[in-house]
Amino acid sequence: MDLSTTIFGKMIDGEIPCHRLYEDEQVLAFLDIGPLSRGHTLVIPKERAARLHELSDDAAAAVGRVLPRLCRAVMTAVGAESYNLLVNTGESAGQVVMHTHFHIIPKSSDSGFMMGWNAGKLSDDDAKKLIADITAALAE
Amino acid sequence: MDLSTTIFGKMIDGEIPCHRLYEDEQVLAFLDIGPLSRGHTLVIPKERAARLHELSDDAAAAVGRVLPRLCRAVMTAVGAESYNLLVNTGESAGQVVMHTHFHIIPKSSDSGFMMGWNAGKLSDDDAKKLIADITAALAE
Repeated sequence: MDLSTTIFGKMIDGEIPCHRLYEDEQVLAFLDIGPLSRGHTLVIPKERAARLHELSDDAAAAVGRVLPRLCRAVMTAVGAESYNLLVNTGESAGQVVMHTHFHIIPKSSDSGFMMGWNAGKLSDDDAKKLIADITAALAE
Repeated sequence: MDLSTTIFGKMIDGEIPCHRLYEDEQVLAFLDIGPLSRGHTLVIPKERAARLHELSDDAAAAVGRVLPRLCRAVMTAVGAESYNLLVNTGESAGQVVMHTHFHIIPKSSDSGFMMGWNAGKLSDDDAKKLIADITAALAE
């Protein structure tokens, strides 16, 4: 897949316009044109990676670094105090554009973003197995 | 508010146990004991900040840096390909523990995490106003 052909890749390259809010060498932030609430912002690495876990450590750190500043500015501008930061990875998790992107979604009374949160309970046995399997995968 | 008294602060300090998956000088990752799906992981900065936008740039970069690696390891361990990364900031946005934390929620058929996505449309006029207000707030 040629990632430079995503709509976000074209924005980075300046081939199509975006509602630009912030840009540095590694990061671009712009308004979502299909906002879930007023001020809904997208933050993307300039590095082409379809999915968050394919991003280089440096590119992910560069995005992380600007998140507090961007969140402060968006909340100040729209007068919100609460928000959700969200990355959907994979189509079944809601990813539409195959260039990894972080949503900043201010919370408002008429927000189009809803969450259902039906938590389970972690058993001791499964915790042990998960710790073993995840730490093994980290060590690979 | 004394942030060292949150449950996550106590985990960082080793005062209460956690299902530890990863730790470095600035970051701790552990299993959520109320998982939305198998492998549901929390990633937190050791820096005490209740809300994402209160985090220092460096602490936020440190969390960002480990996200791709942690997401790869969790997905490998649970056999998932899709997931949501989520930070809830503020009580009305679903934040429960007042120490900023990133959820990694693997997508599974029986996941307890549901999203509603009722997108609006960004008008040209509002885009102009938002760009002016957000870039002004960024410049402060």
